[in-house]
Amino acid sequence: MVDCKRLEKNFHKMAAIGLQANGGFTRLAFSDEDWQARELIIRLMEQAGLAVRTDAFGNVIGRQEGIEPAAAVVMAGSHLDSVPQGGNFDGVAGVLAAIEALQCLKKSGEQHYHPLEVVVFMAEESSRFGMATLGSKAFCGKLTVAQLHQWKDSQEISLAAALRQRGLQPENICQARYPGNIKAFLELHIEQGKVLETTKKQIGIVTGIAAPTRLRVTITGQADHSGATPMNMRQDALTAAARIILAVEEVAGLEAQHGVVGTTGIVKAEPGVMNVIPGRVELGIDIRGISLDSKQCVVQGLLKKMDEIKNQRNVGIEPVILTDEPPVQLAPTMVEMLYAISREQHYASMLMPSGAGHDAMHLAALAPTGMVFIPCRGGISHNPAEWARLEDIAAGTEIILAAIRKLSQRNVTIA
Amino acid sequence: MVDCKRLEKNFHKMAAIGLQANGGFTRLAFSDEDWQARELIIRLMEQAGLAVRTDAFGNVIGRQEGIEPAAAVVMAGSHLDSVPQGGNFDGVAGVLAAIEALQCLKKSGEQHYHPLEVVVFMAEESSRFGMATLGSKAFCGKLTVAQLHQWKDSQEISLAAALRQRGLQPENICQARYPGNIKAFLELHIEQGKVLETTKKQIGIVTGIAAPTRLRVTITGQADHSGATPMNMRQDALTAAARIILAVEEVAGLEAQHGVVGTTGIVKAEPGVMNVIPGRVELGIDIRGISLDSKQCVVQGLLKKMDEIKNQRNVGIEPVILTDEPPVQLAPTMVEMLYAISREQHYASMLMPSGAGHDAMHLAALAPTGMVFIPCRGGISHNPAEWARLEDIAAGTEIILAAIRKLSQRNVTIA
Repeated sequence: MVDCKRLEKNFHKMAAIGLQANGGFTRLAFSDEDWQARELIIRLMEQAGLAVRTDAFGNVIGRQEGIEPAAAVVMAGSHLDSVPQGGNFDGVAGVLAAIEALQCLKKSGEQHYHPLEVVVFMAEESSRFGMATLGSKAFCGKLTVAQLHQWKDSQEISLAAALRQRGLQPENICQARYPGNIKAFLELHIEQGKVLETTKKQIGIVTGIAAPTRLRVTITGQADHSGATPMNMRQDALTAAARIILAVEEVAGLEAQHGVVGTTGIVKAEPGVMNVIPGRVELGIDIRGISLDSKQCVVQGLLKKMDEIKNQRNVGIEPVILTDEPPVQLAPTMVEMLYAISREQHYASMLMPSGAGHDAMHLAALAPTGMVFIPCRGGISHNPAEWARLEDIAAGTEIILAAIRKLSQRNVTIA
Repeated sequence: MVDCKRLEKNFHKMAAIGLQANGGFTRLAFSDEDWQARELIIRLMEQAGLAVRTDAFGNVIGRQEGIEPAAAVVMAGSHLDSVPQGGNFDGVAGVLAAIEALQCLKKSGEQHYHPLEVVVFMAEESSRFGMATLGSKAFCGKLTVAQLHQWKDSQEISLAAALRQRGLQPENICQARYPGNIKAFLELHIEQGKVLETTKKQIGIVTGIAAPTRLRVTITGQADHSGATPMNMRQDALTAAARIILAVEEVAGLEAQHGVVGTTGIVKAEPGVMNVIPGRVELGIDIRGISLDSKQCVVQGLLKKMDEIKNQRNVGIEPVILTDEPPVQLAPTMVEMLYAISREQHYASMLMPSGAGHDAMHLAALAPTGMVFIPCRGGISHNPAEWARLEDIAAGTEIILAAIRKLSQRNVTIA
């Protein structure tokens, strides 16, 4: 059984770091606050009896030896860094849950064949260097020295310089690649959406992690006088843009049953005054899905619609694909195991996609990977109002604990 | 016959004032450049043999006496001030055409019963003080001392202070009200649209001057994560706004045959980032028409549509009517007379509404008023690219000349 009091105490300790006047937390990657949070976690790992080491990117690994030290590792973890004015649960919940699970196992005195490790990935948020999940990318051997020099923060400090400030050698980045075998990876995370809350479920077992396709679309019409231009002589960039905004909703809606979502988050109209028909509009569109086919189907459908709108309205429409990342399907055996555990323990649970990206999506390339979602109030995250209830964190931690207990046995195999 | 060479020379003289590096002209109301333009026109009026006087708002009136000095005045004119980086034709064309017409009449030695006057209205553009057609408002007795103190430019200089800088007494504003009787008022102006150019007409006879109804509409939804919020759990303020933008186009289109136009010129979405569903959108909508009924019909239709969208999409929609001015119908007798003259002189001409506001709309309350439009290249105005051909200006001036010649006879009555 998870120790709720200890778990709560650890969240309180973390809440002393990076607290802002408005109640939010700012722990930007490799900042002093981030480093304080990392040091606190190292202390908590040591108190839990874990042997702590760090890698070339600063990722922290706490190990609990198994009967067979050479066996593949059962691993769990998440991140500690935050967006500016974020909450105390995004990332932190997954790290504290993993530590708590190992502490429970140790206390029970149970034998486990496989070694267990808790990992803290650095720099998961894109807020400082414009790129997300950097620690888990390094852990999977996906970062290059050139990238560390290329990516800079708003103060023009490169990621390489930030590493050096923390006593790390950017030229050794390839050594951050995890050298051992991983039997399975587990991550608990707040949902960052309101599906669990709305459907009154306590646990979400993640089936896949959506990846965004992002488009910038420029619509070019003619900026004429709003009063002196009859309706049939217009080349209105904004009415064409409105058709595109509704097309995003429509084509994503057709694939909604496969978990696809489409959003126009950015609209800028020029010149943007009352008495001129907009001559130029820029849209920022984000399409996500856990099925590559389904997402591609939406993107293609949208491009086709834009072509129709262009011809109907005699405006220029230029879509540029900014990013197009493939979604990650999580191992079905892991999904099944976690869902079975959750039902055995009588939690109201469901299978669901993750719309946001997580460290787990990189780990999925190294080992069978599972993710457990818990509700966050109002679906809010990346915000001072971010909140997860202790009972939900504890429920998620129970599932992580049960999964580790199971996976750490020699006779349990995962495809 | 109009003297094209003299007309061209006068445009060249005016083009020396307020010229900017990009070829545009900046003559903001009551600025040094505006005052230089006014002084040039006073000299031109004097050279044309007119008796020049000014009123309490700085409006300039040049008079050519008639056989009966006590008879109602036949008047023509426009303005000289410009927007920042505007052109050399908006307003200026109407003033130079009126002076040219009187000069032609004088040269011909014809007798005219009614006195003739050319008027230059100050501060027609809203660029400096945020309010348009100020000189013609003052001329019609519609400005108060309080308003002169209330309206300020971006430097916090009040209109009253600007008047005082030019030696005028704001407390005497009521004396700017034109004391005499006006038989008819005429204004030539560039179209500021591309209807004439598109339909290959040289002359537009204006039937009425549209007035705007302007709305600010605030749409309130829920700013959720773009990846983690399924399509059916969204309260997307931007997709609702897109429906409204298309509704403006649709409802205005239904009344397009009555000259109504509807435009969404402003759209602002918050927070305005790729990965958040917009939670708040603000729209700026401009609806114009020369028929009050038709315009009201569009406004009511739009409000009804917004109510439907609000209910369908579970978002808040709050429309605020910022201005709601009545359109001005020009005197049918004047429209008929000008249209007849234009056809007699074999100009390709048409009847058309004015989508933009003009000084003539205030004069229409004092006397039967007529407006003549000439094409401007590409429909562009309020821009360095504003351009009107000399032959079109001359054609419009011929019509103003013929109308003044006719109206200045004792036996010609205008209802």
